Amino acid sequence: MLRKEIPASLQLVRKGGVTSALGFQAAALASGIKKKGKKDLALIVSTAPAQVAGVFTLNQVKAAPVRLCMRHVRNGAARAIVVNSGNANACTGVQGINNACEMAAIAAEALGVKKTEVLVCSTGRIGVQMPMPKVKRGIIRAVKRLATEEGTQAAKAIMTSDTRRKEIAVRFKIDGRKVTIGGMAKGAGMIHPNMATMLAFITTDAQIDKPTLKRCLEESVERTFNRISVDGDMSTNDTVLVLANGLAGNHPLKSYHRQLGLFQQALDFVAKRLAQMIVEDGEGASKIVEVAIKGARNHSDAKAAAEAIGRSMLVKTSWCGGDANWGRLMDAIGYSSARIREELVEIYYNGVLAVANGQPSRTPLARLLKVVRKPNFAITVHLHSGHGEYNLLTTDLTERYVEINRSKGG
Amino acid sequence: MLRKEIPASLQLVRKGGVTSALGFQAAALASGIKKKGKKDLALIVSTAPAQVAGVFTLNQVKAAPVRLCMRHVRNGAARAIVVNSGNANACTGVQGINNACEMAAIAAEALGVKKTEVLVCSTGRIGVQMPMPKVKRGIIRAVKRLATEEGTQAAKAIMTSDTRRKEIAVRFKIDGRKVTIGGMAKGAGMIHPNMATMLAFITTDAQIDKPTLKRCLEESVERTFNRISVDGDMSTNDTVLVLANGLAGNHPLKSYHRQLGLFQQALDFVAKRLAQMIVEDGEGASKIVEVAIKGARNHSDAKAAAEAIGRSMLVKTSWCGGDANWGRLMDAIGYSSARIREELVEIYYNGVLAVANGQPSRTPLARLLKVVRKPNFAITVHLHSGHGEYNLLTTDLTERYVEINRSKGG
Repeated sequence: MLRKEIPASLQLVRKGGVTSALGFQAAALASGIKKKGKKDLALIVSTAPAQVAGVFTLNQVKAAPVRLCMRHVRNGAARAIVVNSGNANACTGVQGINNACEMAAIAAEALGVKKTEVLVCSTGRIGVQMPMPKVKRGIIRAVKRLATEEGTQAAKAIMTSDTRRKEIAVRFKIDGRKVTIGGMAKGAGMIHPNMATMLAFITTDAQIDKPTLKRCLEESVERTFNRISVDGDMSTNDTVLVLANGLAGNHPLKSYHRQLGLFQQALDFVAKRLAQMIVEDGEGASKIVEVAIKGARNHSDAKAAAEAIGRSMLVKTSWCGGDANWGRLMDAIGYSSARIREELVEIYYNGVLAVANGQPSRTPLARLLKVVRKPNFAITVHLHSGHGEYNLLTTDLTERYVEINRSKGG
Repeated sequence: MLRKEIPASLQLVRKGGVTSALGFQAAALASGIKKKGKKDLALIVSTAPAQVAGVFTLNQVKAAPVRLCMRHVRNGAARAIVVNSGNANACTGVQGINNACEMAAIAAEALGVKKTEVLVCSTGRIGVQMPMPKVKRGIIRAVKRLATEEGTQAAKAIMTSDTRRKEIAVRFKIDGRKVTIGGMAKGAGMIHPNMATMLAFITTDAQIDKPTLKRCLEESVERTFNRISVDGDMSTNDTVLVLANGLAGNHPLKSYHRQLGLFQQALDFVAKRLAQMIVEDGEGASKIVEVAIKGARNHSDAKAAAEAIGRSMLVKTSWCGGDANWGRLMDAIGYSSARIREELVEIYYNGVLAVANGQPSRTPLARLLKVVRKPNFAITVHLHSGHGEYNLLTTDLTERYVEINRSKGG
């Protein structure tokens, strides 16, 4: 996942993002939710009705806009996404739900579309009601500013603790027609319930039916957004949405379309890049580490071992210190729910053998330290117990992470 | 768990510890495992054969001495415990097992007891073989120094990243005979596989049969050592041992003895105090927080919710910052495996209502902040979904924690 080469079949769109596909426009402005005139409202609109699919947080505490999106995505096509930062509209009860619905209604009226065709996403503080008069004025102003050029501004407006905007787009051919998939995301940790969250919006002009789009998105998310972790927490607001308006004019992508694989590859690529950007912007992170588990009894064992490593504070602090502390890796997989046999475990740092048969290899420590002191490296753990594999992209745990998160307002 | 009152039926032994009960002696010295002449070897001996029970790490990666202890505890009575710091004898393969056995054999010979009557515990670096010649000389020297007065020195010799020694003893009457339970522990986090671990040794002169002792210890551990968390990791070496030599002369404590409850209370008290001392000495901790879950569907839901809170980096950093960030608590219980209904959740800080019906209460933030800025406070989460309860004692996550753990040698 760390490699950044682009597959030969895809072409990167320069300065591409959420408005690169045909028929998509965006707008961004400061509505007054955030202080000091910071941009806090973004609008993404498709000029044609679009198929829509979404993946949402599994947290039982779901923000009001998440509940609204889940309903609207199920119901039918979509035309627009309203996104605000500065307020998560979570733990806000019935009034929160009403406010999310009103945001959709305001946008729908201004755009001349149905309320159920508008999706709403929020990120920011928990437990505070939306300042609706400001939000209303903001949405109406945003509709008037819609433009293809505003994609980058929209990507900036949804940032919270992010230090850089996250956008990308690729182009490829299906049925001889040019198809574009673009996207933007925010998030600087898997979750920061008080001031942030992970959101990603992907737009495409591909023609694709709804069930196929849903399946493609779920596959992509499973391989990308679900395989990143900064602090192991999961937000109340996490949302990934994809809109496909069909303006590229390809034959509809159904499950039997011979180029569906290419579409999936492009969607994976966009999702993967956005996921990578989130980890690279992880709060306080000084290192990006790819954890690969091989030879687990099965997939879920591999996942459990990878996640135990990615969540262990002791493992993550040792990376921060540039310490090749494989004992902490052994410990973490040992207490994970993955079934392991200590005497079979092998551990590699960027391919250099550190542990063989559960015991230290003969590799000089200096060679391992050289790897761990790099800003990016890969750790491979082979359990020799089966064929289960899993990859996870994660960060170290630094003093800066604590500093950032201790000082966020209550 | 935060309250420190002693039950009326128990009397605290001044400067009490592992040699307070009749017939127990200890010794401590620098054997050379650690550098700079630091104490690294302790010996605890009972002059009479003792019933023994133990609770061990559930980590699948178990250190050699843990494997040895599990066998010897099962087999029969015990006379001595050899403990070293500076080397965990974990991930050391067959040679590690042989070395642990040899440590027991050397002590057994010097003491004139059976090898199976000697228990061995190690804490320190992972993946390094024990320096056996030094260890051998150390054990033989320790046997010659055994004395009742050496309890405190033994408690010091097992420290690694601990900043203070941990010991306690209480006295009470059973069948009119004076009975003493004393103990010592080490650990500054649930686990620090490279340089530390949690170990606790409890000694008593009570007369008690083996199955009853085992059951009592397991109950105590479940309510005390299993309910503390510093960093959520679990060591390869965690061990709690209790030795009961019967010299107090009470009628044997069997399951039907009418004062068995008193013994259990005393054992709980000693275990609880030692567990508290471990949390209070938690690496880098600036705050001790008691998390109480009430009204969960069942016990395991309550446990899952408490542990999600106790492991969340975002929750723990907010405590460090003195931030009454209940949104992060809502988030953590929401993604835990506990079944919750958001709209029923209540959260209290030291009894002050912060969240009612899943939404912010009317309590002014200043009142909550006053609680969270204290060095000790309690958070109670009521889920209103059943009768499950669970308590967990934990710490905040500080820059100092990262600093300590990033810089430990590889």
